Amino acid sequence: MERYLLTVIPGLGESAQEKIREAAESRGFTAMFYETPEEAAEMLPKAEIVFGQSGNLADHAPSLKWLCTPSAGINQFTKKDVFLTGQAVLTNSSGAYGVTIAEHVIMILLEILRRKAEYSEIVARREWIRDLHIRSIRDSRITLVGTGNIGQETAIRLRSFSPECLVGVNRRGANPDNLFDRVVLSENMWEVLPETDVLIISLPGTPDTEGMLGEKELALLPDGTVIINVGRGTIIRQSALEKELRKGRLFAGLDVFEQEPIPAEDSLWTCPNLIITPHCAGNMTLPYTVNCIVEMFLENLDNYCQGRPMKRLANIKNGY
Amino acid sequence: MERYLLTVIPGLGESAQEKIREAAESRGFTAMFYETPEEAAEMLPKAEIVFGQSGNLADHAPSLKWLCTPSAGINQFTKKDVFLTGQAVLTNSSGAYGVTIAEHVIMILLEILRRKAEYSEIVARREWIRDLHIRSIRDSRITLVGTGNIGQETAIRLRSFSPECLVGVNRRGANPDNLFDRVVLSENMWEVLPETDVLIISLPGTPDTEGMLGEKELALLPDGTVIINVGRGTIIRQSALEKELRKGRLFAGLDVFEQEPIPAEDSLWTCPNLIITPHCAGNMTLPYTVNCIVEMFLENLDNYCQGRPMKRLANIKNGY
Repeated sequence: MERYLLTVIPGLGESAQEKIREAAESRGFTAMFYETPEEAAEMLPKAEIVFGQSGNLADHAPSLKWLCTPSAGINQFTKKDVFLTGQAVLTNSSGAYGVTIAEHVIMILLEILRRKAEYSEIVARREWIRDLHIRSIRDSRITLVGTGNIGQETAIRLRSFSPECLVGVNRRGANPDNLFDRVVLSENMWEVLPETDVLIISLPGTPDTEGMLGEKELALLPDGTVIINVGRGTIIRQSALEKELRKGRLFAGLDVFEQEPIPAEDSLWTCPNLIITPHCAGNMTLPYTVNCIVEMFLENLDNYCQGRPMKRLANIKNGY
Repeated sequence: MERYLLTVIPGLGESAQEKIREAAESRGFTAMFYETPEEAAEMLPKAEIVFGQSGNLADHAPSLKWLCTPSAGINQFTKKDVFLTGQAVLTNSSGAYGVTIAEHVIMILLEILRRKAEYSEIVARREWIRDLHIRSIRDSRITLVGTGNIGQETAIRLRSFSPECLVGVNRRGANPDNLFDRVVLSENMWEVLPETDVLIISLPGTPDTEGMLGEKELALLPDGTVIINVGRGTIIRQSALEKELRKGRLFAGLDVFEQEPIPAEDSLWTCPNLIITPHCAGNMTLPYTVNCIVEMFLENLDNYCQGRPMKRLANIKNGY
């Protein structure tokens, strides 16, 4: 019986496809490549391995043994029977996005501190105003909620800007590679919020993290705090944040939202003191990221074929 | 006879004024504070020390012994008799701007690599396009022309993003704090241009640096190279660069220009693949920078009063 490995990732590129094909064939698999789940639908019932992002790929896949998503998030898969019954395992590509998301965070943070949007408007009007008061990463008190791959890569880069301190917030109190000056437990996050000039959120979207930053928590932040969210939109109560932004008390750069795409009529589109990006901080448009994802998949393909433990196994119940 | 110290810096802030006043008075000076050279005109003939930026301050100042400019550049002063005759010495505030300009460079570089201007337009249209192909500082070959305070602070930050290499270009081949993987002499800059993904220029505007990057040098750069100029506008032949930008062969972030403000009818305003900022990378709108400048002035005030050698003495002939 033929064994099939389906890759369903748009715009993957030829060299990546070639690597996957070679690795698959050398292990007795036939490798098929599709841009969309619709194109893959016909072969899906025969697939033993799927390398793809869409939740649909976990439906109607009676032969599926392993699905690897090129994303870090697994929200699309947590309710799928094929994993809940143990028929198949799910791995994610956590660890591939830290580099690109960290660059996004630094860019957006500097844009807010240095009032880049206002300078762009000045230049668009062909004016020559130079004296907007700006702020700096230097000597800022920065709190990173989430100290995984994204938080760590962000901390490495922030450190080179000489902040006053980098405080990590996580569930277990670990301080990976001592990248943080100190680490506070999630349940004690309220302690550090009043001493935070910049708040960077890189948590996954889970029942535990939902609404972690509501009206009460936002009120603890000092005037002028910059919030950057590259985790999931459910973590911040969006209406509470919007109120603070409209008052001019807080500033934010959001890449993720309670609802995506943001509805056309949503008041957030016109909210001041906010930079919106369309969930583009960590997608697969950077060759470095694609290389990481493919290398991690190939490593696990070897683990799978050799019967060794798989890496990056997702925990369906915890949601990450 | 009363001795006068005039500070002519707009928006300096009360705590800085208080520090200067106290230091001046304890050394027998009367300290006066003005926002503009016009306001200071009446007292200027009596001034022994001037702390100010405008070239006018060096005219009609028969009692002047020392002028400290809060800028790094000294172009406004190089033709002033009061310094050419040796009547007065000139010091600059070189070293105060590296931190803020480095943050500007990283911001603009990331904006170009990550196509932030296009994403801003997408969001302005309330669209949800996420798949623009982007680039990264990671694994980029970066050449820094100018390895002074700005080049060094920029290199420190860039290193944390894991570039492939940081190559310095300067006149003497020195490698300050070993911040650069290698250093190339200015006269050999042509060697490194074909291996440059990002070119960062932080040189002063002098006869030596004028037109260092003309049509010929720009042609040596690979397709797609990003040029950031935070030095002086005279260094790059602007019309030659504009041609390359309009072809889409190069990308640029310019904070300095051949003529400033850019004339209203200049074609540069509509040039694609270019981010214009109004010479705001390194001005005195960041409190950290102001603190540095004032501290350096006070250090030199002490040197001046004690008859010790002054720091940051400007070389009128070299132009920096």
